[in-house]
Amino acid sequence: MLVLVTYDVNTEDSAGKKRLRQVAKACISRGQRVQNSVFECVLDASQCAELEHKLESIIDPARDSLRFYYLGNRYHTKVKHVGAKPSYDAEGVLFL
Amino acid sequence: MLVLVTYDVNTEDSAGKKRLRQVAKACISRGQRVQNSVFECVLDASQCAELEHKLESIIDPARDSLRFYYLGNRYHTKVKHVGAKPSYDAEGVLFL
Repeated sequence: MLVLVTYDVNTEDSAGKKRLRQVAKACISRGQRVQNSVFECVLDASQCAELEHKLESIIDPARDSLRFYYLGNRYHTKVKHVGAKPSYDAEGVLFL
Repeated sequence: MLVLVTYDVNTEDSAGKKRLRQVAKACISRGQRVQNSVFECVLDASQCAELEHKLESIIDPARDSLRFYYLGNRYHTKVKHVGAKPSYDAEGVLFL
């Protein structure tokens, strides 16, 4: 299934900047960055649970915001991209 | 249906900063900001087409990125929020 991860991390201090790097790093290893703080990850249920647990362990819930959107398996018609940065198939390879 | 709008606007110049304000303004009037550049909008098909057209007329497609995710009508189980900023019912009223 396609899981969309969006986040806002409070980067007013160095700890926040570190959390931001860690959140991005965790997402990069499991999906595709499509915008600055928006990742698309094709995951099964256990991978999804693992990513959620990982990200929830990184953020400061009092200061950061994390959102997950579950778009299911037939997601190709549920996503539209306009503008800069090439669109791509979440399960395909992005040639830059 | 719930339409998620995410965007990255290039704000390196004043024109970009203006586009960013205009995109946010267009989304604010039609939905709920859930993160800095993430909006949730409950729209019918014609409202959705109108918002897409509006946003596409604002952005610079060579420099900005706009993504729409269509989560359908039964979206309550498709969204998970963790951390700061209250969750809310997209069709409800957010009491701050």
